[in-house]
Amino acid sequence: MTNPTTEAVNTPVDVNALAEADVPDAEQSPRVDVAALGELLLGTWASVRRQARELAAKPELHKLEGLTHTEHRERVFGQLKILVDEGAIQRAFPKELGGEENHGGNIAGFEELVTADPSLQIKSGVQWGLFGAAVLHLGTAEHHAKWLPDIMDLTVPGAFAMTEIGHGSDVASIATTATYDEGTGEFVLNTPFRASWKEYLGNAAKDGIAAVVFAQLIVKGVNHGVHALYVPIRDPQTKDSLPGIRTEDDGVKGGLNGIDNGRLCFDHVRVPRTNLLNRYGDVSEDGTYTSPIASPGRRFFTMLGTLVQGRVSLDGAAVAASKVGLTAAIRYAAERRQFNASSDTAEEVLLDYQRHQRRLFPLLAATYAMGFAHEELLAKFDGVFSGAQDTDEDRQDLETLAAAFKALSTWHALETLQECREACGGAGFMIENRFASLRADLDVYVTFEGDNNVLLQLVAKRLLNDYAKEFRTMNVGALTKFALGQARGMAYKTGLGAVAQFVADSGRAERSALALRDPDMQQFLLAERVQTMVATAAQALQGATKLPQAEAAARFNSHQNELIEAARAHAELLQWEAFTAALAKVEDPGTKQVLTWLRDLFGLTLIEKHLEWYLMNGRLSMQRGRTVGEYVNRLLAKLRPHVLDLVDAFGYTREHIRATVASGAEAQRQEEAAAYYAELRASGAAPVREKSLSRG
Amino acid sequence: MTNPTTEAVNTPVDVNALAEADVPDAEQSPRVDVAALGELLLGTWASVRRQARELAAKPELHKLEGLTHTEHRERVFGQLKILVDEGAIQRAFPKELGGEENHGGNIAGFEELVTADPSLQIKSGVQWGLFGAAVLHLGTAEHHAKWLPDIMDLTVPGAFAMTEIGHGSDVASIATTATYDEGTGEFVLNTPFRASWKEYLGNAAKDGIAAVVFAQLIVKGVNHGVHALYVPIRDPQTKDSLPGIRTEDDGVKGGLNGIDNGRLCFDHVRVPRTNLLNRYGDVSEDGTYTSPIASPGRRFFTMLGTLVQGRVSLDGAAVAASKVGLTAAIRYAAERRQFNASSDTAEEVLLDYQRHQRRLFPLLAATYAMGFAHEELLAKFDGVFSGAQDTDEDRQDLETLAAAFKALSTWHALETLQECREACGGAGFMIENRFASLRADLDVYVTFEGDNNVLLQLVAKRLLNDYAKEFRTMNVGALTKFALGQARGMAYKTGLGAVAQFVADSGRAERSALALRDPDMQQFLLAERVQTMVATAAQALQGATKLPQAEAAARFNSHQNELIEAARAHAELLQWEAFTAALAKVEDPGTKQVLTWLRDLFGLTLIEKHLEWYLMNGRLSMQRGRTVGEYVNRLLAKLRPHVLDLVDAFGYTREHIRATVASGAEAQRQEEAAAYYAELRASGAAPVREKSLSRG
Repeated sequence: MTNPTTEAVNTPVDVNALAEADVPDAEQSPRVDVAALGELLLGTWASVRRQARELAAKPELHKLEGLTHTEHRERVFGQLKILVDEGAIQRAFPKELGGEENHGGNIAGFEELVTADPSLQIKSGVQWGLFGAAVLHLGTAEHHAKWLPDIMDLTVPGAFAMTEIGHGSDVASIATTATYDEGTGEFVLNTPFRASWKEYLGNAAKDGIAAVVFAQLIVKGVNHGVHALYVPIRDPQTKDSLPGIRTEDDGVKGGLNGIDNGRLCFDHVRVPRTNLLNRYGDVSEDGTYTSPIASPGRRFFTMLGTLVQGRVSLDGAAVAASKVGLTAAIRYAAERRQFNASSDTAEEVLLDYQRHQRRLFPLLAATYAMGFAHEELLAKFDGVFSGAQDTDEDRQDLETLAAAFKALSTWHALETLQECREACGGAGFMIENRFASLRADLDVYVTFEGDNNVLLQLVAKRLLNDYAKEFRTMNVGALTKFALGQARGMAYKTGLGAVAQFVADSGRAERSALALRDPDMQQFLLAERVQTMVATAAQALQGATKLPQAEAAARFNSHQNELIEAARAHAELLQWEAFTAALAKVEDPGTKQVLTWLRDLFGLTLIEKHLEWYLMNGRLSMQRGRTVGEYVNRLLAKLRPHVLDLVDAFGYTREHIRATVASGAEAQRQEEAAAYYAELRASGAAPVREKSLSRG
Repeated sequence: MTNPTTEAVNTPVDVNALAEADVPDAEQSPRVDVAALGELLLGTWASVRRQARELAAKPELHKLEGLTHTEHRERVFGQLKILVDEGAIQRAFPKELGGEENHGGNIAGFEELVTADPSLQIKSGVQWGLFGAAVLHLGTAEHHAKWLPDIMDLTVPGAFAMTEIGHGSDVASIATTATYDEGTGEFVLNTPFRASWKEYLGNAAKDGIAAVVFAQLIVKGVNHGVHALYVPIRDPQTKDSLPGIRTEDDGVKGGLNGIDNGRLCFDHVRVPRTNLLNRYGDVSEDGTYTSPIASPGRRFFTMLGTLVQGRVSLDGAAVAASKVGLTAAIRYAAERRQFNASSDTAEEVLLDYQRHQRRLFPLLAATYAMGFAHEELLAKFDGVFSGAQDTDEDRQDLETLAAAFKALSTWHALETLQECREACGGAGFMIENRFASLRADLDVYVTFEGDNNVLLQLVAKRLLNDYAKEFRTMNVGALTKFALGQARGMAYKTGLGAVAQFVADSGRAERSALALRDPDMQQFLLAERVQTMVATAAQALQGATKLPQAEAAARFNSHQNELIEAARAHAELLQWEAFTAALAKVEDPGTKQVLTWLRDLFGLTLIEKHLEWYLMNGRLSMQRGRTVGEYVNRLLAKLRPHVLDLVDAFGYTREHIRATVASGAEAQRQEEAAAYYAELRASGAAPVREKSLSRG
């Protein structure tokens, strides 16, 4: 458990002695180049994001608060038509159908819609990202020509009918069947019992006139596993359900009430054989099943893998919503004053309170990290879907990254929006300030397109597999290479040796005291934790696969929590590396300095959050551990003058923020109050305080 | 920093070796006496709680989801009338007016209403707990006779006009003035600028026809500080605003939309001199100010202190809402199955997943602790308000306890409702399952009646004062006595000496290994942390009061975060002690055993949460630290068979829970599915899985 660096890292250090060395003079204080930073944040698909933000700024696309769910649904359906008219939905589709085959840009564009109304983002996602994308990715050319044009122009709104009441996360176990009838050349769709009703489907309650339905494909008595079929569900004119199809309305939800979620049930509904989306599995007229992928398991994961874009776009939307919330809360905190501890007249600005900084700045740092991480995910996604980088390993990496980032960023968005709402006090609760509204809408992001806990467990299993692959024949000394091999950033693939060397080179205690702020050391600590957690779990699970099934499952279950935490640690490391890689692209020295502090704040708050682990496992000494909180507090103070620039760089305008607390009204009210008191004092009519009388 | 117990506590220990010793045989497995435990949880005011729950079970008092905020307001106002008709609102009022002068029972009754609709609870709280209680506690006999009957029977709905747009937490700085005009014998109420509009007031937007208005009382050019006046605001017949009064509607909020929050503005509005609620400060006809409390500061805090019941009832309501959420989520988790890791046919019950236990059981343990702590708070409140135990110290203790418990329990309720919602997946997001609805309504509890961060800072200041008082002349050896003196439980005021003795007595390593589960040791660790955190901060702040004001404020601010965390630690200790004190009342051995595990889970998850502190400060060794998580996991497994009993003991019926996920529908659907598959297998028509074919 010991490692060569522990001694040096843990050399005693006087935090206060360091303080003066690295706090710059006022004149030397760095400035953030907001425009250049904004450009960096816009990323690879900057122009698409600009277009999408211009669209999202339009009032007719904005959420109106206080509508009933039926009114809200009407409005959002109308907004989808506006997107079609504005040419905002076609980017992912084939060029021959008017699309652009721009997969990364497509996602970038849709995720910006969250600032207008999350219901609009998700309803669009249902129509074009799930229903349409299923036809695109699981269907073949004939399907594209036949159905995509109507899907693209919203002539055919559709549902994505995968989840059932009885099976959400475990898609392989859905119970709806599609049985081939050789006599008629049709598939018969059936819902055998209540638990197999399709559930929570957007467009199912009201708007959908077709659906892509996932079902167990049964041909000649053989179940070939889950496949997707295109199924008309309502009469396009009357909107009545077609024969054999029943629908139910999910009614009011905790949020996203602009979407008509509902249930579908099929009572021996017949569709032509050619309605099977047959890219990965086909049935000939005589009932012969064929597939380009021999293994049913691999086929299943390949089919599901084509739908990863949902997770990717939720990740991006969660980051965007966090940016909106933080912009409003930080602008308000820079104006709002409460209590006058430091003088008898002027009250303190909220942003000067240490606690307020502690509440908001680490969330700001994490939002930056997640934004950069999302850009990398989007690039990976585009590589795979454009075919430019589309190996099996690329697809697996994409799956793992999407699962890891979506889980952390959607939870982060809820935490951020809540903290922002609380940081604005009662005003934060008013719907006009949008924190509560955004939070309610984003709530379901943490469980849909994959429950976050289940997603992290998937990531953990990938880590265990990688571990097993790498170390079947290796010794323990190679473990650290594994951890750093997991690292995705370009800049820091330096291995443990380099870290040790760095520490050894720093002869003086003061030098090594800087180590915690050194990126190599932050990376080493974050990577070390992932590696050790995975290795520890792997050792505990060794031989489990040879046990009887129930015992193996029990063994795994007794480590489930730590495995999920290992996956979280892995995602945090990748986010940190994405931030660090982005830093390398910054040229302006002031911006680079401030962003470096922000990255350090991200790294150090992660280390602080898991401090017990570092102490318990001998990676940090007690004394070193006690300095982490101090470092964090000093970073907060350093960042204080720059946080308004850092939220300005997000680039969202008043039309995207739309929060009264961020409108400048608070500062205006304070000026009015100050002017009133100044005039009162000048007039000599100001009342004397009783307290001051009794003093005299 | 070292202490005599560290060595013994940190003796090496083999967790697995201990496992067998204390897991009982199946036959010996304890049973919870649900009825008796339920009675214990009902507490001192059991009969009032029963009545209130019977009332809260009535459908006409339940929240209807999907209403517009105007419809919801109508409904809730009607519900208030039902409460009047049912005789549910008079408990706190004077006997001569038909009340019962039952202060504790009054709060107990109101907080149960949260299960019907939080808007109903809070709107009742505005009418009778704030508006009415202000007249009761700040007014005198004449006021009571004149106004309370109409307030009690809802003839006069009223607002509690304290908070202003510009000042929420800092009440002393409100800017509304009430200036005495000796010429007419009237007070002139005025809103000098926009920031001093009264804001967020329930009953202000629509229903209120009077208000208790807090204003700076100015008499003959002297400002006597904040006082309260009774002010008519609307014509009782037409509901039009009275001359000089302007109202605005806050509109839609993040929750509690059954309440008509709004703003009030006074343009030189005149009320008779006798409308001053004059218990703590009076003005004679000729303009002489008198008060039974000479110090303006003390007078202010005494007046505000009479309004502590808001915080007390929010604490209780937060616990009740947590109980409702946990009951639903745990019942669902006991039925719902997903994935079949341990066998090819049966799927796992969610509650058997370690992660699921980790997510829900510590919240259950904390809810128990907070429930017991609330009972103690309520008893303290009743003692003060009945006059039975009403010293200055009692009042200060009450303030501190209410601030500490309200802060922790309201945050806990949000965390719990969110985790419950996520633990139910997509179903948790459906409004019919109420998690999202309750969470949205309770959101504002964390900032109203005192922003939680500000409340914890108040608690911290009290701790610092106590520390200063105790140790002005004492040496460091007395510190631990201080920490344990803070302890409120009866059973464990044993002092550090006894803890050390316990450890010394346990000769064998195995014995001392049990220490973490020994209540004395848990208490020692929790108390030690509070004491050290306070002492450390106090030392850092030493001499600060002698510094210039701005420097003193800066010094305090640089320790703000740790002070707030010390206050949290203090509240956690008190909750733990309340749980432990309640345990002592349990006689049934099975119940006592299970509750002891639950209390241990609470204590150990607290220690686990702050593990970095214990390690960093040498209170636990690295090795001991690594056993905490293991202990927690084993407690989860032990509690697994009992959690349904533990939520049943909360005593809420289907009419209070009202969540489809807790209705048994899930189990029924699974039975239907299982029967279908059994029949299919029996018929020989079940399709063969492709996978099994390729195996053969």
